[in-house]
Amino acid sequence: MNYKIGLDVSGGDCAPLEPLKGAELARGELDASIVLLGMKEEIARGAQEANIDLSHFEIVEAEEKIEMAESPAYSVRRKKRSSIVIASNMIKNRQIDAFVSCGNTGAVVCASSLLIRLIEGVERPGIGILLPTLKGVCLLIDAGANIEPKPLHLFQYGIMASLYYSSILGKKEPVVGLLNIGEEESKGPDFMKTTHRLFSQSTLNFAGNIEPKSIFSGDCDCVICDGYVGNVVLKLSEGLADAMGKFLALNIKNDPLGKVGALLMRSSLQKFKKSTDYAEYGGAPLLGIDGVVIIGHGRSHAYAIKNALKVAQEELKRDLNARIKGRIDEVSKDSRIREILAA
Amino acid sequence: MNYKIGLDVSGGDCAPLEPLKGAELARGELDASIVLLGMKEEIARGAQEANIDLSHFEIVEAEEKIEMAESPAYSVRRKKRSSIVIASNMIKNRQIDAFVSCGNTGAVVCASSLLIRLIEGVERPGIGILLPTLKGVCLLIDAGANIEPKPLHLFQYGIMASLYYSSILGKKEPVVGLLNIGEEESKGPDFMKTTHRLFSQSTLNFAGNIEPKSIFSGDCDCVICDGYVGNVVLKLSEGLADAMGKFLALNIKNDPLGKVGALLMRSSLQKFKKSTDYAEYGGAPLLGIDGVVIIGHGRSHAYAIKNALKVAQEELKRDLNARIKGRIDEVSKDSRIREILAA
Repeated sequence: MNYKIGLDVSGGDCAPLEPLKGAELARGELDASIVLLGMKEEIARGAQEANIDLSHFEIVEAEEKIEMAESPAYSVRRKKRSSIVIASNMIKNRQIDAFVSCGNTGAVVCASSLLIRLIEGVERPGIGILLPTLKGVCLLIDAGANIEPKPLHLFQYGIMASLYYSSILGKKEPVVGLLNIGEEESKGPDFMKTTHRLFSQSTLNFAGNIEPKSIFSGDCDCVICDGYVGNVVLKLSEGLADAMGKFLALNIKNDPLGKVGALLMRSSLQKFKKSTDYAEYGGAPLLGIDGVVIIGHGRSHAYAIKNALKVAQEELKRDLNARIKGRIDEVSKDSRIREILAA
Repeated sequence: MNYKIGLDVSGGDCAPLEPLKGAELARGELDASIVLLGMKEEIARGAQEANIDLSHFEIVEAEEKIEMAESPAYSVRRKKRSSIVIASNMIKNRQIDAFVSCGNTGAVVCASSLLIRLIEGVERPGIGILLPTLKGVCLLIDAGANIEPKPLHLFQYGIMASLYYSSILGKKEPVVGLLNIGEEESKGPDFMKTTHRLFSQSTLNFAGNIEPKSIFSGDCDCVICDGYVGNVVLKLSEGLADAMGKFLALNIKNDPLGKVGALLMRSSLQKFKKSTDYAEYGGAPLLGIDGVVIIGHGRSHAYAIKNALKVAQEELKRDLNARIKGRIDEVSKDSRIREILAA
């Protein structure tokens, strides 16, 4: 089947150049065809600068643009001719199968939620992010789409994350952990306790509560948390890694031996940097939407965008959403789960 | 005035040896006298091993012990003859002025809250932790005492943190930030928006919302958040720093140049480690309690315990709690604050 994947050329800190280069890189590696969405003059200017032949792509012109700092709900309602809103409508109308954007995350979530249907039975979409661990990567969901979730939302995130991990990352029965401030099931606020009961009754490979310090050990493949906490995890990890680098640089400045040491360590430091680089993983899937939506990091360069396009194709080929629909449907009929939710 | 500071000799991963060594170290540096609380045989064994003359200390014997992994509420209700419960009662009865423990954090919070009064007008105690930043340290409160706070609780944390920072760390009008997932005041759940309004109306040096990635930049001296998120910040920071060290060690193992580089960088790495070491800051003040309570890290060694005892004395000398009481009282009469809370 010939899938069509939309790419937001107007979104992200490095638009339009890097999205266009990413599309060109991906073209040779994808079966799917790529649909470029963005402002006409931006696409033309970027293509000229990067020396890209636009005849390889389908182009859908936008007439306005949602900026990175704009209010999501307001901009989505007002800017109906922006790449983000147009793409969401095209997914809804089955004109494209997937959409990759490095633009305003909130606007992508908002447009997807408002304009595209959810997968039947799914209550809320969630943003999954891939974090490096000592054993590989873990998928953390939700990273900010749903800041006050109910237990059923978190439980469904666990189901979707587990299916994503096994389908896309190829590990059977991935280990699912619930992020909490203590390992005992009595820890945390009430909605977390109910969520723990739902997971305990499920057929998921549930490891119970895990503490934040264990995320990076890699013992869990999928880490489930509310969007507020998930967003804190994401931004704190970025901020701390950045600060640690700056701390070290400050200390080395007046230490000649240290400078030489840092040079000798460069290859190891680069390997380390690569293993923790979001660009390797392409982007964050917005799970639960009836269509494939991938949110790239605002700072994404061509390589990350190419990877995001590949992940989008993988989700389509593996028919992830049909699997999610099937499992959500099964679980909704499970009497033990229904009892916990009714209590 | 001759203050008395209680020290839990039975609490922490390195008890009784390190608390005893810490007390001995602190003895020469403090005006206050130190009261050792713990199991008789532990104190005797530790003193012999560390060659410490116990006649320099007052000793209060405990007959049981709250273990690190025990349920806080249950253990505090049941183990009335434990060092933690005895110390809380002694603070309440003004037999000691302060208590330092590296034992079960939950039990210390629980015993303090149940047995000691709160400072008049304070609604909930909060745990303040000192985190290293690129410009010094910031005080984050709450790190886990109150996982579902109301706006007034968070606002009072801001008042207490600001007074702690100016009194103990000596910076006038410290900058106070509210930890949130975006800088705009419209971000986050409703209780955060109300909290933002309270801070905006106050006389505190309020910088608005700050994102988690900015904690380590050092732009804010005091960072206010709910105890659930604060606990995630604390444990994630520890876990991530630890994982980054392990990542690097793994990569260097098969890289001879990298190994030499790491050796040459040792002095810088050690400086870095020292600047991020909780031991320098002594411990986490439990603010809001009518008495001085400091919670040390479970892994504290003598040096950290000595610093915690010094911080306890500093809180007493600066009469921090009287300042808190005065400011809380003023604020409770502020009509703008009352209006927001009544809305």
